[in-house]
Amino acid sequence: MDSARILNIGKKPLEDYIVEVILIFQEGSDKLVLKGVGPNISKAVDLYNMLVSRMGSSIELVNVGIGSEKVRGRIKPYIVIEIRRKY
Amino acid sequence: MDSARILNIGKKPLEDYIVEVILIFQEGSDKLVLKGVGPNISKAVDLYNMLVSRMGSSIELVNVGIGSEKVRGRIKPYIVIEIRRKY
Repeated sequence: MDSARILNIGKKPLEDYIVEVILIFQEGSDKLVLKGVGPNISKAVDLYNMLVSRMGSSIELVNVGIGSEKVRGRIKPYIVIEIRRKY
Repeated sequence: MDSARILNIGKKPLEDYIVEVILIFQEGSDKLVLKGVGPNISKAVDLYNMLVSRMGSSIELVNVGIGSEKVRGRIKPYIVIEIRRKY
C-alpha cells in the first residue's frame, strides 16, 4: 500500500463514514484505506459493503490486509481495506 | 478460492478454534478458510493472528476476501481468510 489516505473507523455511526468517504473522493483522492481495529474490523467490512451497494461499480476493491498491532500496550487485530474510485 | 475446507467462526472461545485448526492440519489438509460473519469478522482476524503467533512461519496467508451475504433474510458482512500450512 503506497501513500493512500487512511480513514480510521471508530465509534461514529456508519452513515458518518459513508459521507466522509464520499467527501474524500470528491476532494480528488482516488485511493482510500479503510482501517478498523478490534471490534471495528466488522464495522470496516460493513462500511465497505455499504459503499459498494451505494456506489456500485465505481468502487473497486484493491486489497485487504489483516494483522495485529500494539494499541496502548495491548496487541489488537486490525483490517485494512484498500479501495479505489473508478471514473 | 478452490476446494479448501471452511471453518466457520462462531460463538466458541478462540482457544477451541485454534485447536480445531491444528487438528485439521494434522489430518492432512494444507489449506483452510477461516470464515466470520457479522461480529465474528473481528474474531476471525483475531484467530488468524493467534495462529501466526503460535505457528509462526508455518502458516501462510493466501488471501483475504470480504463481502456480504444473506443470513436468514438479513444482509450481513463476512470475511474469508485463506491460510496454508507450509512444511
